[in-house]
Amino acid sequence: MTTGKVWLVGAGPGDPELLTLKALRAIEAADAVVYDRLVSAEVMALVPPGRRMISVGKAAGFHSVPQERINRLLVDLAREGLRVVRLKGGDPLIFGRGSEEAEELRAAGIAVEYIPGITAAQGAASSAGVPLTHRGLATGVRYVTGHRARDAALDLDWPSLAAPDTTLVIYMGAASMAVIARELIARGLPAATPAMAVASATTPRERRRVA
Amino acid sequence: MTTGKVWLVGAGPGDPELLTLKALRAIEAADAVVYDRLVSAEVMALVPPGRRMISVGKAAGFHSVPQERINRLLVDLAREGLRVVRLKGGDPLIFGRGSEEAEELRAAGIAVEYIPGITAAQGAASSAGVPLTHRGLATGVRYVTGHRARDAALDLDWPSLAAPDTTLVIYMGAASMAVIARELIARGLPAATPAMAVASATTPRERRRVA
Repeated sequence: MTTGKVWLVGAGPGDPELLTLKALRAIEAADAVVYDRLVSAEVMALVPPGRRMISVGKAAGFHSVPQERINRLLVDLAREGLRVVRLKGGDPLIFGRGSEEAEELRAAGIAVEYIPGITAAQGAASSAGVPLTHRGLATGVRYVTGHRARDAALDLDWPSLAAPDTTLVIYMGAASMAVIARELIARGLPAATPAMAVASATTPRERRRVA
Repeated sequence: MTTGKVWLVGAGPGDPELLTLKALRAIEAADAVVYDRLVSAEVMALVPPGRRMISVGKAAGFHSVPQERINRLLVDLAREGLRVVRLKGGDPLIFGRGSEEAEELRAAGIAVEYIPGITAAQGAASSAGVPLTHRGLATGVRYVTGHRARDAALDLDWPSLAAPDTTLVIYMGAASMAVIARELIARGLPAATPAMAVASATTPRERRRVA
């Protein structure tokens, strides 16, 4: 029996139409799909019937299956000779821990391939019509995470984040929104700077209404 | 005759498999496709025969058709009642000037929709196997442009760019690579910091060999 392979695949921000062609083909060809809670039901509906589907229930900042067990699971499935798709919300290499899983897989001698996905910042920008860069206003864009370990303070480089010429995107920032606003204003970002809080930006309407 | 509509569509980093499903459907449904030089030939090959295809020849930092004329062209095509796809390399809202074109279109009363695309940073990361964030190493990622106006110095916020815990991605940075390295080291970024120069990351091999 030959060893299988693992594709670390970005499922995009929710709307299944925002999957890449390559991601869809990988999903259709997979023997097993290991997926996070952040992957939308509409994307999961694209997995053909009869395939092994394993939820590892990971959501922002909360892991129902510890990362070590996810790594072990991926190794075991590949060693069974399966084509394994590890499906992650957004892009596997942007706050997705894709590279941690890849390290473990490579250490176990298993072939790994990445397939990028539209990350939440892009989904939010395109659906809200707000650019991430705009000549003369925002000469760059920066993604940071607002998630913090339980009881820890949010440890970000506030002075540089308060730069007014860069679009700042904070992933997993809902719980820390007030702290973030306060710190940025304290470091000199004008209080009148436009800001937007986005959730479920490209998730199909029906589910958004329920959520 | 009803007025048409313009879709500002991200063509991704080169590999046509990295188009989103939504982008492909927009391309297939378009009456006219207005495209930049950064859009790969493989992506353009997906435009069905018989559609109007208009190159505006825009490449990094060099516009063969001035932005004002591109804006006018899009308005005129939509006023003819056409479904117009404005196809851009990468993502239209990340260094793509998509929002400038959208402003002009909206001012002319024309409906606009964005479709995001995999941006070059993501294409480079996934094909090279290098993450944009990695727990404990890079807590965020930042995209800036290394392009500068003719004869102008590269005006970037060097002290904050030299932060060692953020992955720094410089678009259109080839011409300024030496300056960038010198400035970052001068501001305290260790000279041994790993760096990677990437071109044509996901462009199909045949073309890469020729280029």
